[in-house]
Amino acid sequence: MEVIDQLAPERSKSQFDVDAMKIVWAGSQHAFDISDRMARLVASDPAFRKDYRVTLGRKELFKNTLRKAAHAWKRIIELRLTEEEASKLRTFVDEPAFTDLHWGMFVPAIKGQGTEEQQQKWLPLAYKMQIIGCYAQTELGHGSNVQGLETTATFDPATDEFVIHSPTLTSSKWWPGGLGKVSTHAVVYARLITDGKDYGVHGFIVQLRSLDDHSALPGITVGDIGMKFGNGAYNTMDNGVLHFDHVRIPREQMLMRVSQVTREGKFKQSDVPRQLLYGTMVYVRQTIVADASSALSRAVCIATRYSCVRRQFGSQDGGPETQVIDYKTQQSRLFPLLATAYAYRFVGEWLNWLYTDVTQRLQANDFSTLPEAHACTAGLKSLTTSFTADGIEECRKLCGGHGYLCSSGLPELFAVYVPACTYEGDNTVLLLQVARFLMKTVSQLGSDKKPVGTTSYMGRIEHLMQCRCDVQRAEDWSKPGVILEVFEARAARMNVACAQNVSKMPNPEEGFSELSSDLVEAAVAHCQLIVVSKFMEKLQQDIAGKGVKEQLQLLCSIYALSLVHKHQGDFLSTGTITAKQASLVNAQLRSFNAQLRPNAVALVDAFNYTDHYLGSVLGRYDGNVYPKLYEEAWKDPLNDSVVPDGYHEYIYPMLKQQLRTARL
Amino acid sequence: MEVIDQLAPERSKSQFDVDAMKIVWAGSQHAFDISDRMARLVASDPAFRKDYRVTLGRKELFKNTLRKAAHAWKRIIELRLTEEEASKLRTFVDEPAFTDLHWGMFVPAIKGQGTEEQQQKWLPLAYKMQIIGCYAQTELGHGSNVQGLETTATFDPATDEFVIHSPTLTSSKWWPGGLGKVSTHAVVYARLITDGKDYGVHGFIVQLRSLDDHSALPGITVGDIGMKFGNGAYNTMDNGVLHFDHVRIPREQMLMRVSQVTREGKFKQSDVPRQLLYGTMVYVRQTIVADASSALSRAVCIATRYSCVRRQFGSQDGGPETQVIDYKTQQSRLFPLLATAYAYRFVGEWLNWLYTDVTQRLQANDFSTLPEAHACTAGLKSLTTSFTADGIEECRKLCGGHGYLCSSGLPELFAVYVPACTYEGDNTVLLLQVARFLMKTVSQLGSDKKPVGTTSYMGRIEHLMQCRCDVQRAEDWSKPGVILEVFEARAARMNVACAQNVSKMPNPEEGFSELSSDLVEAAVAHCQLIVVSKFMEKLQQDIAGKGVKEQLQLLCSIYALSLVHKHQGDFLSTGTITAKQASLVNAQLRSFNAQLRPNAVALVDAFNYTDHYLGSVLGRYDGNVYPKLYEEAWKDPLNDSVVPDGYHEYIYPMLKQQLRTARL
Ligand SMILES: Cc1cc2nc3c(=O)[nH]c(=O)nc-3n(C[C@H](O)[C@H](O)[C@H](O)COP(=O)(O)OP(=O)(O)OC[C@H]3O[C@@H](n4cnc5c(N)ncnc54)[C@H](O)[C@@H]3O)c2cc1C
Ligand SMILES: Cc1cc2nc3c(=O)[nH]c(=O)nc-3n(C[C@H](O)[C@H](O)[C@H](O)COP(=O)(O)OP(=O)(O)OC[C@H]3O[C@@H](n4cnc5c(N)ncnc54)[C@H](O)[C@@H]3O)c2cc1C
Repeated sequence: MEVIDQLAPERSKSQFDVDAMKIVWAGSQHAFDISDRMARLVASDPAFRKDYRVTLGRKELFKNTLRKAAHAWKRIIELRLTEEEASKLRTFVDEPAFTDLHWGMFVPAIKGQGTEEQQQKWLPLAYKMQIIGCYAQTELGHGSNVQGLETTATFDPATDEFVIHSPTLTSSKWWPGGLGKVSTHAVVYARLITDGKDYGVHGFIVQLRSLDDHSALPGITVGDIGMKFGNGAYNTMDNGVLHFDHVRIPREQMLMRVSQVTREGKFKQSDVPRQLLYGTMVYVRQTIVADASSALSRAVCIATRYSCVRRQFGSQDGGPETQVIDYKTQQSRLFPLLATAYAYRFVGEWLNWLYTDVTQRLQANDFSTLPEAHACTAGLKSLTTSFTADGIEECRKLCGGHGYLCSSGLPELFAVYVPACTYEGDNTVLLLQVARFLMKTVSQLGSDKKPVGTTSYMGRIEHLMQCRCDVQRAEDWSKPGVILEVFEARAARMNVACAQNVSKMPNPEEGFSELSSDLVEAAVAHCQLIVVSKFMEKLQQDIAGKGVKEQLQLLCSIYALSLVHKHQGDFLSTGTITAKQASLVNAQLRSFNAQLRPNAVALVDAFNYTDHYLGSVLGRYDGNVYPKLYEEAWKDPLNDSVVPDGYHEYIYPMLKQQLRTARL
Repeated sequence: MEVIDQLAPERSKSQFDVDAMKIVWAGSQHAFDISDRMARLVASDPAFRKDYRVTLGRKELFKNTLRKAAHAWKRIIELRLTEEEASKLRTFVDEPAFTDLHWGMFVPAIKGQGTEEQQQKWLPLAYKMQIIGCYAQTELGHGSNVQGLETTATFDPATDEFVIHSPTLTSSKWWPGGLGKVSTHAVVYARLITDGKDYGVHGFIVQLRSLDDHSALPGITVGDIGMKFGNGAYNTMDNGVLHFDHVRIPREQMLMRVSQVTREGKFKQSDVPRQLLYGTMVYVRQTIVADASSALSRAVCIATRYSCVRRQFGSQDGGPETQVIDYKTQQSRLFPLLATAYAYRFVGEWLNWLYTDVTQRLQANDFSTLPEAHACTAGLKSLTTSFTADGIEECRKLCGGHGYLCSSGLPELFAVYVPACTYEGDNTVLLLQVARFLMKTVSQLGSDKKPVGTTSYMGRIEHLMQCRCDVQRAEDWSKPGVILEVFEARAARMNVACAQNVSKMPNPEEGFSELSSDLVEAAVAHCQLIVVSKFMEKLQQDIAGKGVKEQLQLLCSIYALSLVHKHQGDFLSTGTITAKQASLVNAQLRSFNAQLRPNAVALVDAFNYTDHYLGSVLGRYDGNVYPKLYEEAWKDPLNDSVVPDGYHEYIYPMLKQQLRTARL
């Protein structure tokens, strides 16, 4: 059957070079090539099909994931894929699995915290997957407060071993992905006790299961913690529970890069600076920001294409109805999300640079930028994941009723995404850390310690406290300099106001805690400024391709102005803009949305997502939505028979008034 | 084992009479008694247990729902429950089922749109469940735009029948609950065609399945539309697809209360006013607002109790850590949600009164308040469902990692709730209707047509356009009069500004469409005012019980002030309050939150929810969270065996480097 591209008219309207934009989105030609190749590889391999995923019971679902993970690994070996390619391939398989933790947390933990010898011993095993590892930090009773973990690792000098033990119910490890059913090993965080003294939380490599028959080793109780949000979603992952009953491991299995325990049981700090560990955190959070952009862009791609296919109301003289994307409310809900996907992409790219920069400085023993880099990644992790979670759900709503079907792809995208707001640091807890850093920065203004990196705008605090926005006509809001300054002024003023209010309290700790909600808002203002400014910096670069830069400029303006509108309370209450200027923002946004409209589909095409990866009938590249929705429906197991299971026991007796005597 | 009430210390702190508050929440002693009795009935009946729901495959899940529905009906008959009791019982069974549509849409449609004779014929069958019905309006191609439905009902005078037909793929009925697998009948909406003329959309009673063997009748293709958001959630419901191939029904099965087709095929309007149909809409939407309050209060109950159990950070001298509810950020996220649950409860109660009022007026041929009542219910439906959906998800996040587990109850609560933002009118489409009504109201100001009901504040437009808020100290924000006026002024000013901007456009239609995002925001401002004012009206009543009224006053203030803060952009840009006053709002909110804190648990206890209904380990009445979480985990089917299914095929070969040769 010939496939008609229902979206062809949309594509022909676009005013820029989509292929060039694809390179910009991917980051480079090289990144694009790999991504494109891996996406096609996965999409064309029947073993990676996603059908039926949502109707499976837990066991089949999980087994199916094991199959895919094994198949992916097989392909990786057969095709001799590079690390970069392998990681992309796993991304496009698009199913959370134990391998995520093995590669994403277990291996990096050993690399970051293990000594040279430890790395030489364990990494080759892990690289070949002769052992499978997970990252066991969180416990039933403690997540955010890592220092409160209760698991103990007590050194026994008699045998040169650590005894790993879970003294309470709440000390059970709880949540680690890959732990429940698969991992043979774990990096376990436990309180180091030696010589009768508690030296706080450290990491230990612990074998959990036999490499021969996968049975749990003596003293270890391990299992899955049960169902999580969504149908498939994270239920393909065996987040686990783990209880230790005096499990012994050799002393060498403590990760000893920064601290050691000697044969005699003496605790020692090594000369490697502890701060090195923060480097890993910057790395992990940078990937989370990049993931936010991916998740949001997938949702936006689905909602944008479907909004062009979906028509509702407004038919004139029997002609076609209005495409819902032409409703201004739809535009003002959707286009800022599209712009945000791009904004997060670029801030993610920049964070990648920041990571390299920080690493180089650390190696040169320069720790000066670390607190700023740390605050900045914590803040961006929080900002981008919270917004993305909400944005995905908004995309689902933008699709009306059909967005509620799993075949839209959106429910699963949401359910699998939302824990990003919680893991790697609860978003509120992270913003409070950012706030603490910002309060310190403000308190040091005027001193010798100059604000660096993303806080350097605070160096112009006097100007920012009194500058006036001189927007007079809507078009003035298209000037990047104007926009940047209002974001800077708002962030500076909110943070200074917080600092002043904190200082009025009896003591700073109490003040910080009492005003923490305001502080969180001020931290958000700072983080939004970072995103806006990094988008603008990106636009300073050479960008090839007809019309590409113009579209990016438009997206940047929409991103920034939609935030000004959404948070106009901040801008107005700090006197950064006037009410009149706030209403000009709306006018300018309307005009920008109208400019974006013809390019909307091309801008989501530039993500270069395969239909396999999108996993959405509504977001199909060809826009052939209705026949496919209809087709999908019949695949539900409930449609195996016309008369459903249970009819004879429950429905028939009801209809025939015979329930009274039935045993149910 | 003795059960310890972990939350007893919280309960002993409370400063009001919880039992009296339970009556206020329920609405009356009578309502409380029924609710309490039905909740216990369901909770104590093993047939209604909820365990394992989330791990079942689709077919078992659905069969299990049929079983529960049959059992519920059996109990209803055995116990000779009244309609009110039966409906409460179904609520507490807490599982979407075909019966919801049968009782909630099919029966009311016949009551509202059927003639006396039609009611006499069909209602007794429906009341005894000798037939099971659903409401088949939405099609694959049309939801919001009901006038665009494509199904046809063509009168054939030769046989005195209508021929029901689906002329296109997009005309397939799509979404109706109960349709997919269960309903024997449906009220089908189709374009009435007689004498070669299209008379628009009307309702028809159509039999779909044989009453003997449940097979689909000739010409009818019917099935389930597949999986939806969440594990259990709405997947217990058979939302269906339905295609007609020239299905014939007797002419008498057109619902003929307001229009008729005669034996000769002549179309006639009856003398019953069409507006009567709106009465039903007011009714249905009122129940949706009540449901919003239930759903939000359940989520808030879980998050509040767990926030008292959960401790994280802040341990001093080895003492217990801080309960997370004591963090100000947690309070400022949670307490407004608690206040909103109460606010929606009371506005729901008021809507119930409005429905009675409208019905009485309609019977007396007084249509004067109908447009206002219609706009008001549409707006409140939109406002409360959008906020509740977001609020449930916020409660989930407030529970940190554990909120992501299904055993927290929150994922399911969210997944089953969110479609309320879409069904019975997409929330954006509804707000646009409200906006249209408000623009009309504004345009008539100064004319003879005085604004009525919830718009009567517009009658004081001159005052509201220029009044000044005279708050000078934080405590001034505790005066109801002050709060009410700023809400009135904000709503009035935003709507007047919109009307002025619309009038500047070339023509009103274009202006309305161009400015629709602003209009939606102005409509929201109006709807929030309604909720605030109805909460305040409630507080004018006599309310019994020690401290009860004080708590409600506190909740009302928190509800209103948290909105002022959240939407401070509106208040500032309209000049309703000053920046200084906005910051006093924050100060006052902090003080109110501190006042609420000791009463938080008692305020959620007042909802009187059983642990069965809450369905949440985190929200347990006794706060015994950790042992129960641990216990729950082991019930997952994945824990049936230590070594998971798939180990031998996929994990072992991976560990042993034997994948190359494996067939996967
Ligand atoms: C899908 C998923 C996968 C995971 N994978 C892993 C894994 O592989 N390995 C692993 O070790 N862990 C893992 N985790 C655990 C995760 O890291 C923790 O859940 C996370 O750190 C949040 O901690 P918590 O659950 O203790 O939240 P809590 O701290 O209990 O949060 C509860 C509430 O308290 C508030 N709060 C807490 N402290 C403060 C404070 N000081 N000030 C103000 N408010 C506060 C929070 O904002 C939140 O609203 C995973 C979790 C999930 C959901
Ligand atoms: C769980 C569930 C149960 C349901 N049960 C039933 C049932 O029992 N019986 C039944 O008949 N139906 C049922 N429905 C269907 C439901 O009533 C429709 O989905 C709903 O009316 C929304 O219509 P839609 O899907 O066409 O949304 P659309 O109108 O397609 O919405 C898509 C987008 O377009 C926007 N939009 C549409 N029109 C306009 C406009 N004029 N101006 C601006 N924006 C616009 C919307 O805001 C939305 O963002 C159910 C749906 C769900 C999800």
